[in-house]
Amino acid sequence: MSDKELTPGRHLIYMEWYSRDVGGLFMKMNRHLFAAKSPYQRIDIFESDFYGRVFSLDGITMTTERDEFMYHEMLVHVPMFMHPNPKKVLVIGGGDGGSVREVLKHPTVEKVVMCEIDELVVKAAKEYLHYTANKLDDPRVELVFEDGSKFVKQFKNEFDVIIIDSTDPTAGQGGHLFTLEFYKACSEALKEDGVFCAQTEGIFYDYEWGATAYRRIKANFPIAKMYLGFMPTYPGGMWSYTFASKAGLDPVKDFNPEKVRNFKEPLRYYNEEVHVAAFALPTFVRKLIED
Amino acid sequence: MSDKELTPGRHLIYMEWYSRDVGGLFMKMNRHLFAAKSPYQRIDIFESDFYGRVFSLDGITMTTERDEFMYHEMLVHVPMFMHPNPKKVLVIGGGDGGSVREVLKHPTVEKVVMCEIDELVVKAAKEYLHYTANKLDDPRVELVFEDGSKFVKQFKNEFDVIIIDSTDPTAGQGGHLFTLEFYKACSEALKEDGVFCAQTEGIFYDYEWGATAYRRIKANFPIAKMYLGFMPTYPGGMWSYTFASKAGLDPVKDFNPEKVRNFKEPLRYYNEEVHVAAFALPTFVRKLIED
Amino acid sequence: MSDKELTPGRHLIYMEWYSRDVGGLFMKMNRHLFAAKSPYQRIDIFESDFYGRVFSLDGITMTTERDEFMYHEMLVHVPMFMHPNPKKVLVIGGGDGGSVREVLKHPTVEKVVMCEIDELVVKAAKEYLHYTANKLDDPRVELVFEDGSKFVKQFKNEFDVIIIDSTDPTAGQGGHLFTLEFYKACSEALKEDGVFCAQTEGIFYDYEWGATAYRRIKANFPIAKMYLGFMPTYPGGMWSYTFASKAGLDPVKDFNPEKVRNFKEPLRYYNEEVHVAAFALPTFVRKLIED
Amino acid sequence: MSDKELTPGRHLIYMEWYSRDVGGLFMKMNRHLFAAKSPYQRIDIFESDFYGRVFSLDGITMTTERDEFMYHEMLVHVPMFMHPNPKKVLVIGGGDGGSVREVLKHPTVEKVVMCEIDELVVKAAKEYLHYTANKLDDPRVELVFEDGSKFVKQFKNEFDVIIIDSTDPTAGQGGHLFTLEFYKACSEALKEDGVFCAQTEGIFYDYEWGATAYRRIKANFPIAKMYLGFMPTYPGGMWSYTFASKAGLDPVKDFNPEKVRNFKEPLRYYNEEVHVAAFALPTFVRKLIED
Repeated sequence: MSDKELTPGRHLIYMEWYSRDVGGLFMKMNRHLFAAKSPYQRIDIFESDFYGRVFSLDGITMTTERDEFMYHEMLVHVPMFMHPNPKKVLVIGGGDGGSVREVLKHPTVEKVVMCEIDELVVKAAKEYLHYTANKLDDPRVELVFEDGSKFVKQFKNEFDVIIIDSTDPTAGQGGHLFTLEFYKACSEALKEDGVFCAQTEGIFYDYEWGATAYRRIKANFPIAKMYLGFMPTYPGGMWSYTFASKAGLDPVKDFNPEKVRNFKEPLRYYNEEVHVAAFALPTFVRKLIED
Repeated sequence: MSDKELTPGRHLIYMEWYSRDVGGLFMKMNRHLFAAKSPYQRIDIFESDFYGRVFSLDGITMTTERDEFMYHEMLVHVPMFMHPNPKKVLVIGGGDGGSVREVLKHPTVEKVVMCEIDELVVKAAKEYLHYTANKLDDPRVELVFEDGSKFVKQFKNEFDVIIIDSTDPTAGQGGHLFTLEFYKACSEALKEDGVFCAQTEGIFYDYEWGATAYRRIKANFPIAKMYLGFMPTYPGGMWSYTFASKAGLDPVKDFNPEKVRNFKEPLRYYNEEVHVAAFALPTFVRKLIED
Repeated sequence: MSDKELTPGRHLIYMEWYSRDVGGLFMKMNRHLFAAKSPYQRIDIFESDFYGRVFSLDGITMTTERDEFMYHEMLVHVPMFMHPNPKKVLVIGGGDGGSVREVLKHPTVEKVVMCEIDELVVKAAKEYLHYTANKLDDPRVELVFEDGSKFVKQFKNEFDVIIIDSTDPTAGQGGHLFTLEFYKACSEALKEDGVFCAQTEGIFYDYEWGATAYRRIKANFPIAKMYLGFMPTYPGGMWSYTFASKAGLDPVKDFNPEKVRNFKEPLRYYNEEVHVAAFALPTFVRKLIED
Repeated sequence: MSDKELTPGRHLIYMEWYSRDVGGLFMKMNRHLFAAKSPYQRIDIFESDFYGRVFSLDGITMTTERDEFMYHEMLVHVPMFMHPNPKKVLVIGGGDGGSVREVLKHPTVEKVVMCEIDELVVKAAKEYLHYTANKLDDPRVELVFEDGSKFVKQFKNEFDVIIIDSTDPTAGQGGHLFTLEFYKACSEALKEDGVFCAQTEGIFYDYEWGATAYRRIKANFPIAKMYLGFMPTYPGGMWSYTFASKAGLDPVKDFNPEKVRNFKEPLRYYNEEVHVAAFALPTFVRKLIED
């Protein structure tokens, strides 16, 4: 039976409880396609008419087919377009494959190393999440199943772009990817003109984590700037990312919109105006992260 | 992975909404083992630590592994022990197999015909609900996949016991099994000393249906008596059944407790005291069904 | 505006989570009439079309206007009809007033002492729960706001009937009313022909508490018998009570149904047949509490 | 008792179901402060630790104390700062008072007419929502309780700024404020240099309404531009507004950031960078509204 034939009742409800259990998002599901417990976390994949397939770790939504493009485009294209010639890219986390899919839209890329701690996430994504995982078998991709916070330490001056596509600091092993030490190792693993970008959590519910991550990144790079994007199925729909550059590139002043306008691959969220606009922070966010 | 290794989070919630949407029961699930849409209804099977496997039709709980014994024992053993020598039994509905399982505990039984409209329910039960379906392949069992309200019309003076194990009158094709005409056909299909029993819905939320079914049964038999049993995962936990006898047997006065005391098969709910006690109706139930 | 004019949406949901968070009951509410935190517990009163007014302590349903009669009649009339001439009655707990209301239906009663630890419960009940609290100002009633487990110790050979209408052992101070020591004190506070009855929790979800309470009561009286009643809005709808008698009265053999048949006050659940039937325990309950 | 002393349990849940019932947001509440049915809609006010006071109409969240500033600042300050000298302002809807509060931060304002169809909303807001309603008694404010779609028709060339702070087109009488005819009347009620702004719904769940409202506004003004803002407790957290100008002012090219930088009143979301950035639409939104 095709997925679309099974219309949802009101009896199968996926509830994501936000931090400190203040509330959350619920989605009416059609079916539960996959459930497993890896050594790191509980993995679930659901399906619904509106959200499409929904992937969650420890009950926290990682991607939905309907809006993952907003997250992955904002996490990946901001740093990728800031680098003059990205050839070698490291993605830490990102087991669903969405970040790798976006990285490979850039024709200069020769190699993407994706270091995901949980091999079962990648297996599940390959089977159930074709919308994100469809480039994981590309010959330019090298998959490594290790703790990214350890893996990155073996590299010095190696990557053009490093992208941190982590789970929440409070879920699974996500906390490892939010430490000062980890960000320092990332900086060292980058080439001199390398750029870095990390998802730095929501700004409405988990604002302390966003501010903390931003400050720790900033402590390791000559320039670091937070930017925001809409992400409807993440808590508050208001997501933060932090861009950093080893050579001090400013993501607004040094941005070349022409590169984006000439880009051949289809994008649904990111464009040259959104790139700049994302760095315009609401006043309360400015204050949250100001020194 | 065995089922028990996947502990439930709080993110997968099965919600049964009761009649008129006044509220309902929710259960925290581990996984959703099966979902399909048959020509008649949506079928789901879930799994949880506490309730075990849970089977639902159109979002209404049919059985949970934890308490189905209460329902099936009360539906089946009351009529079976009232018949002096039950050899040929008809079960209408009951696709999960629980009623057949209980019928076959009676050593006099030579044949059970189970007429279930939805073949997919039986397939799913055989695969996922071993706790109820484990006797469906017994050589004494004949499975028929037809509308029970039509099927029963072809028989006259044929069965010793007829048991109606229907879904709710408002779900799928359940309404067919709650008509005056259907109960009349059941009466005709019974031998002269035959006995009849039907589940007649909850008495707290769906009390009108219980009273209606009782009156319609009573109109077709010289004696009909409603009885009650606990059934925690059904609405209100307060379930009604109606016993009827073609020869006028009274389920209390003509009951022989010795037969129950000498019964060799294990039972977990029904016993000779419960049989009699079940017919003692609370005053508001007496009034609900009084003429 | 009268209460009935405000029809419920689907946005105000009362969720009772059952023990160990396995699931629970949800009710669609119209309004939230009262919320307060006493020194002992959080008190809420809601209103809904179907359930009427709903009173909860620490998120656990105590009474709903729709089904409280089932609980209060079974808790009170079983012991009251067993006593030959109940004049002086002690109710411990029961702050909503429902038990007192039932006790006062017996014309022999000269005095009811109700010892409720939480005065705020009684205040709220008097204002919002007229359906249970309507007899709390009767001149035969003496209200005491103390810990019942301490209060009862001052009496020896004083009461004809003691009724324990406690909250759950896990909520507020409910645990005090489930100890061996407490039941011993109750026995001592009874006259020689006194009878005792306690609600002893649900048998489907909280079965360990039921068995424990039963055994502790039994250890303090020459005879103690558990009985069951339907209670749709309590967990599983399957509620246990334990009757005990200081003089060894058997609640079935020594029961006089004539007294019930001649009773003038209106009852909606309890009757002479239900009294006897309630002591017929399903086999799994027999086993749960057997020695 | 102060509101903060009553910590929330898990038993009082406010659930907003999004369009087409695909899912929604739930919030754990402390208490339900107010519930009433006006001739137009059901009005509820809840209170929670995290969200503060929450105001909803027909089960749809209108404001929460925690994030209403994001919505009201974006709806009001974009048009107010675009007008060279706003003296007379019309707010249609906005019964909670939040838009009026923001309008009055502009010192040039001499009069604000607020036309809200539902007087009971304003009464409730004055009593329970001081965070938004605290300027409704300002002498510059004139409150009118009428259908805004009719009220606006009596004015020609009257207002400097018109702000549409409506409920959803599907709730209450909200649909009246989304018609071509209504937007035409607004245009006529503006002075020649007047500016207009309307909330035009979410872009993730209710995207058709956003596009429709935008096109209808555009059909009545020489220039109309949609912009976006974060609004965590609205569906998807991604909210659209449409700015229009009778004289053809472009909200980006003709914007003077200096006015914002010199503004003396405290703002928490809106600033001169956010003003411009909000008009940078993600590609899928551009496509949704393109001609």
